[in-house]
Amino acid sequence: MKLNILGCYSATPRTITNPTSQVLEINNQMYLIDCGEGTQVQLRKHKIKFSRINQIFISHLHGDHFFGLIGLISTFSLLNRPNDLHIYGPKGIKEIILLQIKLSKSYTKYNLFFHELESTESELIFEDDKVEVHTIPLKHRVYANGFLFKEKPGLRRINIDAAQEQNIEVCYFNKLKQGSDLQREDGTIIKNETVTFDPQPIQSYAFCSDTVYNEEIIPLIKEVDVLYHESTFLERDIEKCIPTGHSTAMQAAEIAKKAHVKNLILGHYSTRYPEIELFKKEAETVFQPVLLADDGKVFKF
Amino acid sequence: MKLNILGCYSATPRTITNPTSQVLEINNQMYLIDCGEGTQVQLRKHKIKFSRINQIFISHLHGDHFFGLIGLISTFSLLNRPNDLHIYGPKGIKEIILLQIKLSKSYTKYNLFFHELESTESELIFEDDKVEVHTIPLKHRVYANGFLFKEKPGLRRINIDAAQEQNIEVCYFNKLKQGSDLQREDGTIIKNETVTFDPQPIQSYAFCSDTVYNEEIIPLIKEVDVLYHESTFLERDIEKCIPTGHSTAMQAAEIAKKAHVKNLILGHYSTRYPEIELFKKEAETVFQPVLLADDGKVFKF
Repeated sequence: MKLNILGCYSATPRTITNPTSQVLEINNQMYLIDCGEGTQVQLRKHKIKFSRINQIFISHLHGDHFFGLIGLISTFSLLNRPNDLHIYGPKGIKEIILLQIKLSKSYTKYNLFFHELESTESELIFEDDKVEVHTIPLKHRVYANGFLFKEKPGLRRINIDAAQEQNIEVCYFNKLKQGSDLQREDGTIIKNETVTFDPQPIQSYAFCSDTVYNEEIIPLIKEVDVLYHESTFLERDIEKCIPTGHSTAMQAAEIAKKAHVKNLILGHYSTRYPEIELFKKEAETVFQPVLLADDGKVFKF
Repeated sequence: MKLNILGCYSATPRTITNPTSQVLEINNQMYLIDCGEGTQVQLRKHKIKFSRINQIFISHLHGDHFFGLIGLISTFSLLNRPNDLHIYGPKGIKEIILLQIKLSKSYTKYNLFFHELESTESELIFEDDKVEVHTIPLKHRVYANGFLFKEKPGLRRINIDAAQEQNIEVCYFNKLKQGSDLQREDGTIIKNETVTFDPQPIQSYAFCSDTVYNEEIIPLIKEVDVLYHESTFLERDIEKCIPTGHSTAMQAAEIAKKAHVKNLILGHYSTRYPEIELFKKEAETVFQPVLLADDGKVFKF
């Protein structure tokens, strides 16, 4: 998995900071998560091929998470995109996009599918042969979801040396990859695990922004490899969290700790603080390792 | 008048080019014309005070002319703007903005007024004591208007030396500024023009984008000081103009020449050409002076 942070600052886009958007790359598929104003320019800047994005996940309908979507959809059209595009986001997103398309008479030539979300329970919203995406219901000022990306286990891998030693012909390899034992003509059994390795370990990524501190998400994100949790504020401004629907860096770390995640990435910083290092320092008092998102940063895991 | 070009390229925003937006400054008032995606960042970059924009004029509902509007309106809110904001643009613009405000539960604390346009005749849409704004109906793929900004004549200016020579007291200056003659106690008349100068010359600016070559606009923009006319293409691509609703640089120059304008500014360039200087060269074969808009450029006139 590779995570490209296109923007990770809260509220308004500025000359050097961008609102939320990130591209998660899993097995050569690219999933766009949130799409603040200017996302298409950030995609260009970081040389991410527009054509490889087929699914877009929108957490909630605050401007800093979706005002760039209509522009991206239009640009896909101008670039003569052939592929279908699937948009997952809160109920209402379809009406917003289609109204603008209708009034600008800019109908897309590609197929545009909307998958509107309104459940407050976690649900499986996308899967293919490599990955599943589940919602993580969040608590914010408006209806919001995080997204849990879970790789599916791959096939077992042939232990070539062991297979040759046992004189197994190549035509049986697919059966082995799928986990079956083999039976020789003399009736003896070759146990699968003696000639194969386990599949590549699977990975999981949980995106949680925007949200107040909410322990209800813990069972959903338990032991994920990477948790991106918003940290709009530092503890010294904790009184701002409930009215605005946000968390502090320490609260993000508490969630990471209680969910036993492997890595925590912080983001969605308020620009009121002089440096983002302060978020890391605060979170590290509770949980480690803490990584800081920043516009243009790429995480490989 | 001062014209700040925030963006002047057609179609999609890119890393170094921005879609249409400009700020016209007249007598310390700032009028925003069009608002492509990223306009708020361009405003910040060019240090234009958000609080001085009270009127926004949107030519038409293609994304490269208005996708930045909802973001700007939201940011005004986050910045606790106190002033009313007036939006002038095609019918439908109110529905687009209000739907997004409603779904994001981000109601503005300031008053937001929409002045929706649907006439195909030129109309006076705004005036205060310093300026009038008239629409310039354009021909494009969707309903579109250019905008004509005309300063109103100011007051006559006192010729201090002449006034003192005639022993005119200061309390009569306002009357003189308004153009009246004065009568002395002995009944003799002081002719106004003997003790005043003409008002500052008034200026006019016509913004015409996007449009095909359309001679019907000529009477409306006759002898303006500055005409901004789109030139998406060069003559070698003239066959693209009608289907897309655009003009060539030479067509823009033809309009400038036939309308006897004083200066022509070109913009809304397609990014297919290697350098914008080509637009100037082409237009100059028909009309001079030709100026090239470019993102970040400021014209004073």
